Amino acid sequence: MAPVDLAGPDDLSFVANPRYLPYVQDSLAGVLLVPESLLDRVPEEIPTIAVEDAHVALYHVLRLLHPEQREPAAVHSTAVIAEDVELGADVTVGPYAVIERGAKIGDRCQILAHAFVGQGVRMGTDSVVHPHATLYDGVIVGDRCIIHSGARVGKEGFGFVWLDGGHRKVPQVGGCVLGDDVEVGCNTTIDRGSIGDTVVGRGTKIDNLVQLGHNDRIGEHVILVSQVGISGSTTIGDGAVLGGQVGVGGHLTIGAGARIGARGGVIGDVPAGETYSGYPARPHRESMRSHAMIAKLGEMFRRIKALEARIPGDD
Amino acid sequence: MAPVDLAGPDDLSFVANPRYLPYVQDSLAGVLLVPESLLDRVPEEIPTIAVEDAHVALYHVLRLLHPEQREPAAVHSTAVIAEDVELGADVTVGPYAVIERGAKIGDRCQILAHAFVGQGVRMGTDSVVHPHATLYDGVIVGDRCIIHSGARVGKEGFGFVWLDGGHRKVPQVGGCVLGDDVEVGCNTTIDRGSIGDTVVGRGTKIDNLVQLGHNDRIGEHVILVSQVGISGSTTIGDGAVLGGQVGVGGHLTIGAGARIGARGGVIGDVPAGETYSGYPARPHRESMRSHAMIAKLGEMFRRIKALEARIPGDD
Amino acid sequence: MAPVDLAGPDDLSFVANPRYLPYVQDSLAGVLLVPESLLDRVPEEIPTIAVEDAHVALYHVLRLLHPEQREPAAVHSTAVIAEDVELGADVTVGPYAVIERGAKIGDRCQILAHAFVGQGVRMGTDSVVHPHATLYDGVIVGDRCIIHSGARVGKEGFGFVWLDGGHRKVPQVGGCVLGDDVEVGCNTTIDRGSIGDTVVGRGTKIDNLVQLGHNDRIGEHVILVSQVGISGSTTIGDGAVLGGQVGVGGHLTIGAGARIGARGGVIGDVPAGETYSGYPARPHRESMRSHAMIAKLGEMFRRIKALEARIPGDD
Repeated sequence: MAPVDLAGPDDLSFVANPRYLPYVQDSLAGVLLVPESLLDRVPEEIPTIAVEDAHVALYHVLRLLHPEQREPAAVHSTAVIAEDVELGADVTVGPYAVIERGAKIGDRCQILAHAFVGQGVRMGTDSVVHPHATLYDGVIVGDRCIIHSGARVGKEGFGFVWLDGGHRKVPQVGGCVLGDDVEVGCNTTIDRGSIGDTVVGRGTKIDNLVQLGHNDRIGEHVILVSQVGISGSTTIGDGAVLGGQVGVGGHLTIGAGARIGARGGVIGDVPAGETYSGYPARPHRESMRSHAMIAKLGEMFRRIKALEARIPGDD
Repeated sequence: MAPVDLAGPDDLSFVANPRYLPYVQDSLAGVLLVPESLLDRVPEEIPTIAVEDAHVALYHVLRLLHPEQREPAAVHSTAVIAEDVELGADVTVGPYAVIERGAKIGDRCQILAHAFVGQGVRMGTDSVVHPHATLYDGVIVGDRCIIHSGARVGKEGFGFVWLDGGHRKVPQVGGCVLGDDVEVGCNTTIDRGSIGDTVVGRGTKIDNLVQLGHNDRIGEHVILVSQVGISGSTTIGDGAVLGGQVGVGGHLTIGAGARIGARGGVIGDVPAGETYSGYPARPHRESMRSHAMIAKLGEMFRRIKALEARIPGDD
Repeated sequence: MAPVDLAGPDDLSFVANPRYLPYVQDSLAGVLLVPESLLDRVPEEIPTIAVEDAHVALYHVLRLLHPEQREPAAVHSTAVIAEDVELGADVTVGPYAVIERGAKIGDRCQILAHAFVGQGVRMGTDSVVHPHATLYDGVIVGDRCIIHSGARVGKEGFGFVWLDGGHRKVPQVGGCVLGDDVEVGCNTTIDRGSIGDTVVGRGTKIDNLVQLGHNDRIGEHVILVSQVGISGSTTIGDGAVLGGQVGVGGHLTIGAGARIGARGGVIGDVPAGETYSGYPARPHRESMRSHAMIAKLGEMFRRIKALEARIPGDD
């Protein structure tokens, strides 16, 4: 498979987005996957396969062409694993991985090179911890989770009180729980709860460089795109989608299925199902309208001046 | 202890924020810590302990209930420590930690699993370097500092000149100095100075994923919330607080005690003691007023149009 | 060498920016490098050396005063290197570095402590991988590249389809290619392509905590300042400069030589050579003008009210 502009006669390619239609004319691709909705915009002489959704078709085709390859399970001789750690069946532990005492690792998990698994961590089955990721003490990870390289899960939260001339750390005694099928991106940081847990629900996918604060409760099947930052004690409802670089204040609630446009800055609750954007985040249509009007402020000023000139004023 | 909405009859809980008063009615908590200011808003039948500040009370109670546990000091057999490194008394070095030549580590420090301590690093007493953190060559760390997992301290700064058809790196020969009681969050990056040092003052707490540029001079007891980015050669005064995702331009000064609201984008100096927000950051009240007026721009346009209709114009 | 405000009589210092002229008066520096354009603003009694560009002069002076020191090449006994790895001449491999099977490392490369180099990675000559950096399987790195501590290069992209009640990962089968002289900052994350490659062109310098999405095509000699985030399938032209915390949406094109001011949020294409800023990013002058007018909205409202009061309305 190859992108439409680079594909040759032996390649399968696809068009998922009308934006790429201009490339189709000159594409040398052997055959194109095209959604039915775009089919009449592709020249007839180009061989196509009509599909309902190009991305879903890709998913199926790529899994056929690139089946997942799994190395045989093995524990590397350099891994440092505390004596009382319970390793399930067919667990892989890479070179220089460290698993501290009391940890419990489910069947078929992979703890890859240099990964650090703290005391008392519990992992379900079939989860992967990539090189250099850190699971702090006591973190709970579900089944089929993927923790990417450099992710830091379960650090103590950022909570201080001012006492005797300095910021004193409030002990952060809560936990950090990731449900099944959760993915945590590279270098993402998830703090554990201060009192009570930080929770990431089943099926939620978190991109790179995201920050979750203490006691956040992230619902199921949520999507958090890269560089999102969520302050502490905030609740994100099931199925919500937060675009890249979105920021959300503390102690807020974003309802189920809500969408926050990339870079939105959320400073109040967002109702379920709504799409918000901008800073401060507002309903997307209002936000777009404001941006359009801001671009016309110069004209507005001129019209006010013209009105003032036409009206005999008191001063 | 448990959060007010999850606490049972055997739990101690607390209310620090009026936002959580609605949960009090149905709380099963055995007893609640309540600040005096909220006491009359809690139903009488709920057992309470009046406190001046709920967070300070929490700090004391949690330290009693969860005393810090310290493992006996030990140097793991897999640690790679250069011959001339000076380790103080009761230092812990975790598995696979690397300490390079010329480093000097004070009493009771903990260099945990996989931590990397470069050549000539000097650390005071009682400081902790968490798994996978990196102290580049020559970094100076005070007493009682905490460097969290994945933090990168003392990388060369991002400075180039354009010469002979390419960006050429200007040698970055300054240092990086962290005062006593400094905390550096997970995956935070602090560049060393180009000429002269990058300095973080005593008692300053830095959250996760923060970026400090070369030659920044961060004062004492400053709070930098997660994802803050500060360009090079900027000065932040003592006691300043920068909210999440704040950005600050280079060569600027933020005065002592100033506060920058989350997401603020600072492009000029900020006077001591002021609260700024928005982009470009302005005094918070002005900024809030602008946001309110932006939301009314549609109405403003309509009123101008109405005025124009009522006035016989020249054109 | 020392900064102008800290330099003593034995120090060489410099003034690159008029902002620092106020410090010159009291500077004790032995001699100052001063660009010709500022020369007449420096008091006559201060010894100066006139230079065309202070930063270029610094580059040359610092390289003379601080010549790069290179340790003799050596492979540490604790490095885990797969049997079939091809190491060039004079390669350094640090303690606990891991190089997986099929990797090919060019002459004089340095793979430092704890670095992870995945299966089939190919590196040119003279490149450095700093402690704790991760090169995922199959990544291609050119000559003279610098991969800083904690950078994650070549992770699978963030692509899902919704199927059978969950987000399913679309196999990410593309590669990740860094050209010659590329620098990747600390904790920066670069995803590999879904189909086709993510590409970073020759001479491009990427700061800390930057995110590049799958299939981004970054041109040559581009500068990406820290915390920039670029969504997938976006093209950045040669020589473009993106300021700190800039965000760029997916499937966009930023033309060659364009500049995006710090924090700009780009939601459409940007023509070559243009300077954009703000959110949504617009030509910088328009953007600045809008900000100025927003600050005057209160006055605008008052003037509209005054007009309304002076005109006998219908209602």
